[in-house]
Amino acid sequence: MASTFRTTRRVEFCDTDAAGIAHFGSFFDFMEQAEHELLRSRDLSVFMNDDTGIISWPRVAAKCEFQSSARFEDILDIEVSIARLGEKSITYAFRFRLEETDVASGEITSVCCRMTDQSPPEPIVIPQWFRDKLGA
Amino acid sequence: MASTFRTTRRVEFCDTDAAGIAHFGSFFDFMEQAEHELLRSRDLSVFMNDDTGIISWPRVAAKCEFQSSARFEDILDIEVSIARLGEKSITYAFRFRLEETDVASGEITSVCCRMTDQSPPEPIVIPQWFRDKLGA
Amino acid sequence: MASTFRTTRRVEFCDTDAAGIAHFGSFFDFMEQAEHELLRSRDLSVFMNDDTGIISWPRVAAKCEFQSSARFEDILDIEVSIARLGEKSITYAFRFRLEETDVASGEITSVCCRMTDQSPPEPIVIPQWFRDKLGA
Amino acid sequence: MASTFRTTRRVEFCDTDAAGIAHFGSFFDFMEQAEHELLRSRDLSVFMNDDTGIISWPRVAAKCEFQSSARFEDILDIEVSIARLGEKSITYAFRFRLEETDVASGEITSVCCRMTDQSPPEPIVIPQWFRDKLGA
Repeated sequence: MASTFRTTRRVEFCDTDAAGIAHFGSFFDFMEQAEHELLRSRDLSVFMNDDTGIISWPRVAAKCEFQSSARFEDILDIEVSIARLGEKSITYAFRFRLEETDVASGEITSVCCRMTDQSPPEPIVIPQWFRDKLGA
Repeated sequence: MASTFRTTRRVEFCDTDAAGIAHFGSFFDFMEQAEHELLRSRDLSVFMNDDTGIISWPRVAAKCEFQSSARFEDILDIEVSIARLGEKSITYAFRFRLEETDVASGEITSVCCRMTDQSPPEPIVIPQWFRDKLGA
Repeated sequence: MASTFRTTRRVEFCDTDAAGIAHFGSFFDFMEQAEHELLRSRDLSVFMNDDTGIISWPRVAAKCEFQSSARFEDILDIEVSIARLGEKSITYAFRFRLEETDVASGEITSVCCRMTDQSPPEPIVIPQWFRDKLGA
Repeated sequence: MASTFRTTRRVEFCDTDAAGIAHFGSFFDFMEQAEHELLRSRDLSVFMNDDTGIISWPRVAAKCEFQSSARFEDILDIEVSIARLGEKSITYAFRFRLEETDVASGEITSVCCRMTDQSPPEPIVIPQWFRDKLGA
């Protein structure tokens, strides 16, 4: 199973809201950015081509729980791990911390899909080469 | 118990992403906007003053599941209902549809808090006048 | 020349920042939304098809000056007019007001382009049918 | 006069739009982030305290011109310089490039203000200690 991936994200001014803290919706963007960073670290991307065309990863679920808050210019420590690896989907788990304080934890579930212009994304079995690179 | 509140939201260009659809993170903003609209419809707001100071509603949890997708200029039908009314918290449930097609469904849980400049938000029992106006 | 188009936009919570006001960047989204609304009011869109393919309107310039600020739940009055109509481009001018107070004024210049998958957008002369509908 | 400050910014998925490129509005957030990075590099911030209270920098103008476009995961090279240093305001100039290709160039003008809760921001002369640290 893949080890935990660690990254950081500074809270930018456009991430904040009038309550003076990072807007709860920003954490979903932070999770997505961390997921993409994990993929890049393993030479993968959410948009890839194989012989048949484009493979991408539409989200089917996302959630986040908030334990405390973060402010402008705080640097969040982010841990990403693979919580569940299915036949056709991956669930990533995220933990956000400011030093020793838990800020938020969440999950995103993405489905491996064949993308075409004409029809909706079609779920496919995650290719073996993707699993191998993911180390999962 | 409060009846279901209905509103609509047009998908704006800035809500879309390079997959050609409304970005999954936008739905969290759409849910928040619909929650605030429900409150306004009942002469309430997420920021209110009583004799003691400011009352607001920090989020402790948010989640969304996606059944299909929405595109630029689509007009989403949104249903908001109160899924759980606790002593100190409210969980709102949301359903997004395009005509007869389910697009997404989600929840936001907000905690009634006394806000101060000096310390973190302090959870309080939801005031009776708030419950009365909410009709819940 | 087209008459002034008027619309409104409520400042949503996700539009605000930790200074307690609508983030300056939000006004560029507000301008774009008002431009799209003007087009829809004239049965036009920023993405249209003619016999040859897709026509769209990439931005080449945008600017905004700020006279005062707007807060959460303020309803901005927005005026849109066509400041310059060129052979291949349109410059829209925007004024934002809260009752009698000037809040911001800006411009967006968009270029009429033939869109293709293979190459960058190619500027074209604005079709006569577009000008006719625009009333400009 | 301060030398040019250089930084980079990856285009994240939430920065893109349905035209498949970084949304024009994202560049205003990119400019603001680069401005804040420049300030941090000189041990300054857009929110600082002196003996009298909080000093901040509301924007009075922002503009951007677009020469080409950027896509998901592109890494933009950003140059920031101080275009004009007034008695009470600073105009920052920005250039965005992808390798040798010009992508966009813009400006933000910020006014040095004393911030209070009760009244609008009050423009003040930029303190000498701020100018000294800025090296401008």
